[in-house]
Amino acid sequence: MPLRVIVWNEFRHERESAAIAAVYPEGIHRAIADGLALVQPQGQQRQALEIGTATLDEPEHGLSEQRLADCDVLLWWGHRAHDAVSDAVVERVQRRVLAGMGLIVLHSGHYSKIFRRLMGTHCSLKWRVADERERLWVVERSHPIAAGLGEYFELPQEEMYGERFDIPRPDATVFISWFEGGEVFRSGCCWERGHGRVFYFRPGHESYPTYRDANVQLVLANAVQWAAPTVALGDAAPMRAPLERIGDKPQADAAAG
Amino acid sequence: MPLRVIVWNEFRHERESAAIAAVYPEGIHRAIADGLALVQPQGQQRQALEIGTATLDEPEHGLSEQRLADCDVLLWWGHRAHDAVSDAVVERVQRRVLAGMGLIVLHSGHYSKIFRRLMGTHCSLKWRVADERERLWVVERSHPIAAGLGEYFELPQEEMYGERFDIPRPDATVFISWFEGGEVFRSGCCWERGHGRVFYFRPGHESYPTYRDANVQLVLANAVQWAAPTVALGDAAPMRAPLERIGDKPQADAAAG
Amino acid sequence: MPLRVIVWNEFRHERESAAIAAVYPEGIHRAIADGLALVQPQGQQRQALEIGTATLDEPEHGLSEQRLADCDVLLWWGHRAHDAVSDAVVERVQRRVLAGMGLIVLHSGHYSKIFRRLMGTHCSLKWRVADERERLWVVERSHPIAAGLGEYFELPQEEMYGERFDIPRPDATVFISWFEGGEVFRSGCCWERGHGRVFYFRPGHESYPTYRDANVQLVLANAVQWAAPTVALGDAAPMRAPLERIGDKPQADAAAG
Amino acid sequence: MPLRVIVWNEFRHERESAAIAAVYPEGIHRAIADGLALVQPQGQQRQALEIGTATLDEPEHGLSEQRLADCDVLLWWGHRAHDAVSDAVVERVQRRVLAGMGLIVLHSGHYSKIFRRLMGTHCSLKWRVADERERLWVVERSHPIAAGLGEYFELPQEEMYGERFDIPRPDATVFISWFEGGEVFRSGCCWERGHGRVFYFRPGHESYPTYRDANVQLVLANAVQWAAPTVALGDAAPMRAPLERIGDKPQADAAAG
Repeated sequence: MPLRVIVWNEFRHERESAAIAAVYPEGIHRAIADGLALVQPQGQQRQALEIGTATLDEPEHGLSEQRLADCDVLLWWGHRAHDAVSDAVVERVQRRVLAGMGLIVLHSGHYSKIFRRLMGTHCSLKWRVADERERLWVVERSHPIAAGLGEYFELPQEEMYGERFDIPRPDATVFISWFEGGEVFRSGCCWERGHGRVFYFRPGHESYPTYRDANVQLVLANAVQWAAPTVALGDAAPMRAPLERIGDKPQADAAAG
Repeated sequence: MPLRVIVWNEFRHERESAAIAAVYPEGIHRAIADGLALVQPQGQQRQALEIGTATLDEPEHGLSEQRLADCDVLLWWGHRAHDAVSDAVVERVQRRVLAGMGLIVLHSGHYSKIFRRLMGTHCSLKWRVADERERLWVVERSHPIAAGLGEYFELPQEEMYGERFDIPRPDATVFISWFEGGEVFRSGCCWERGHGRVFYFRPGHESYPTYRDANVQLVLANAVQWAAPTVALGDAAPMRAPLERIGDKPQADAAAG
Repeated sequence: MPLRVIVWNEFRHERESAAIAAVYPEGIHRAIADGLALVQPQGQQRQALEIGTATLDEPEHGLSEQRLADCDVLLWWGHRAHDAVSDAVVERVQRRVLAGMGLIVLHSGHYSKIFRRLMGTHCSLKWRVADERERLWVVERSHPIAAGLGEYFELPQEEMYGERFDIPRPDATVFISWFEGGEVFRSGCCWERGHGRVFYFRPGHESYPTYRDANVQLVLANAVQWAAPTVALGDAAPMRAPLERIGDKPQADAAAG
Repeated sequence: MPLRVIVWNEFRHERESAAIAAVYPEGIHRAIADGLALVQPQGQQRQALEIGTATLDEPEHGLSEQRLADCDVLLWWGHRAHDAVSDAVVERVQRRVLAGMGLIVLHSGHYSKIFRRLMGTHCSLKWRVADERERLWVVERSHPIAAGLGEYFELPQEEMYGERFDIPRPDATVFISWFEGGEVFRSGCCWERGHGRVFYFRPGHESYPTYRDANVQLVLANAVQWAAPTVALGDAAPMRAPLERIGDKPQADAAAG
């Protein structure tokens, strides 16, 4: 059975700015989806993909209960309209992640409701738009998300994000970025939340063709495989529940022996 | 300057049940506060304490902006009325933790709004009330919270909590509990969120005199010292902000040198 | 290409004690290898296995440069004769792990030279042989090593191992054991060292038929898949080496632009 | 009682090279010791220091059993003569760290026997000597080692160290360095090993006056306080030992109740 992937995009920049539309005429979500369809992930795990998209201005932001119930990995690109995402949908996505769905948060999605809710922190950082070169160093070369990459790769022009990035300590830090203006940033971070895996990946400012870069595409293809659920996606909300007495006890009334 | 501590308690069990009132006649918060006043923390850090209390049914749950602004470490005991805590106060406490205030979450507080918000997970677990013996093993003997303890300590009767405890991977797991009924539990867990330190400590069911136990009192006294802020508690909410160009750049237009 | 697995065993107990030989007539290594051949791992990754064995009293302990160079995952069972393992072979195994080979250390192997060398600590623990029931709780249900297991599984009789287990903080703690005598133990622990993955799994005392238990066999089958190298196993020892100047520099002599 | 500190230095560069002697006329160890004596650590913990030094060419490298038994925190600078350090002394230092002594490993000490033994990895990295500017970003501002620092600090000229640094995942990453030539490096890393705390701090090439820099001195002063033992330094080598049966058991012969 293929991995069912949804690429979610705010999809407003592209409709409101001719400059952005020139970079991503069909929307950032289409560029990301095209990359996923094109690029072969590296390493051992290679499940086929079934790729869909969803955007903010669709009903329920394109993320109905049913669509989410049929989703294994969700990618999230948002920027200006984080507050326009309804709390009910955020709650729904969170429950699905905790049940095992993978979530890949992209670039300015660091400030999305869903990412901040899963992290519990401000997720703030420093930024500057100055067409700077970014070099992403692979700190964990044996991490599945880095499979097939060299020891670093570069993006000729990107927005700068700098530390301190206000996140909980990552379970793994796969990439650290160097920026020519003098900053560093933990650019590829992994966490587990409930049964789900979360990956934050820094690059992807709307004014640069980052999602057409072959290395970025490979990272996302690898990340989708890595984030795939490892448990059957069952009950979204485990309940606190009484247990039968299951252990040994010396008391007279103990059931076991 | 002394550490300013607030012990927060839901304070309903004790007023509604004669059995609970018999265990904690002045409320769980008073028993905890008395223990903190009595017990000398072990290890290197020993700041004097200035101890106050706050309860659910006070205005703003006793946690006004001003009181929180004057608080270094907050302890939280809640059980039945998690939903009665206003979202505004939860948000306020979260902001304060991210700015550096310590937070110690006790027992059934695992399901409090503030703990779940900082963790990002369900924080669910298994439980059973059957007067079982709990033995808490010290897994990190050199952790400041374990200073002065032996290799384990016991509580003759407690509520059982069992795994899987749905929490993000702790930065440190200080205690693991053994229950006579057959379960284990990560009973003392540390995390950092923003600039603040968070400690979850499992024991403390309302029907047992757990907070009068000398080892429990020592753990809490140590934990308060450990959770003390390490940075000046300034702006609660760091903002994403543009930076002046601060690095070297070879281009002609680089501002800095 | 199949995963190439070597099961290493000290293989002395079985030849010196009739009681142990009765449990494992062909040696512990054969029982483990048979289990791996029999059991289908759960979850996504399923590479076919090519399984060999090696024992202490073979030349070079059965671990020549060539055999190790052809090994993807090594399982290690040792107990009484840790000191009889030559330092040269330990060094060789360590280099291979750092280059990406998986290593699964079993039971009393916690005191093996190779495990202590990779951990950097004493790896000491408490123990007692008293035919006690062990219940292994699955703390990370979504970890690939736990795929297909229930929330816990039991071994009716095993040696007890108790905390404190003197190990570096694990990257993941998959299992925590409960023993009827009153102890707990971190029974399934994961680390990365260099490019290699290391898994320690507690059960497996020589006097019990633990390696014929279906749950134990599933754990080992899953662990072999998990520990498989994720990078091409190239140079065993990365060297500190000068780099060409690769970055931007404003100086006149900068090579790059 | 003051913290007893030993600054260990290889002390060969300074005696063999006039250029290095010009930077550190009395040896790197004296410069470090002078800084520790001068600078007031920031944050809560401030124990007075009793500072000694030791060097490679003293008998037993200045680290006899007795001197180590009287040492709370050891700082280690070595570069060219790692192999000249006797294995017996390395073993002795390791045992002492596992018993609780703090260890601060400086710069090229990444390749020292003691650091590689505690890490279990190659500890390799990339390097280049080209008088480059280093900017150290404070990633964990609330970590005690960062107390009193701004959001970053700079060294005008240093040797470059670049990723991948082959170390086990740090328990905390306090600093990440940016180098003008295009690299990044995890420059301040914390681990626990046994009961001891280990801090690796990157800067400190022998040809630059780095240990006279006020920020570097503050980091070391803070790190010494942080690395102080939290447990009484007793038995260096915990032994695997049988336990009396201490738990509840339903059997007739159970000792405990």
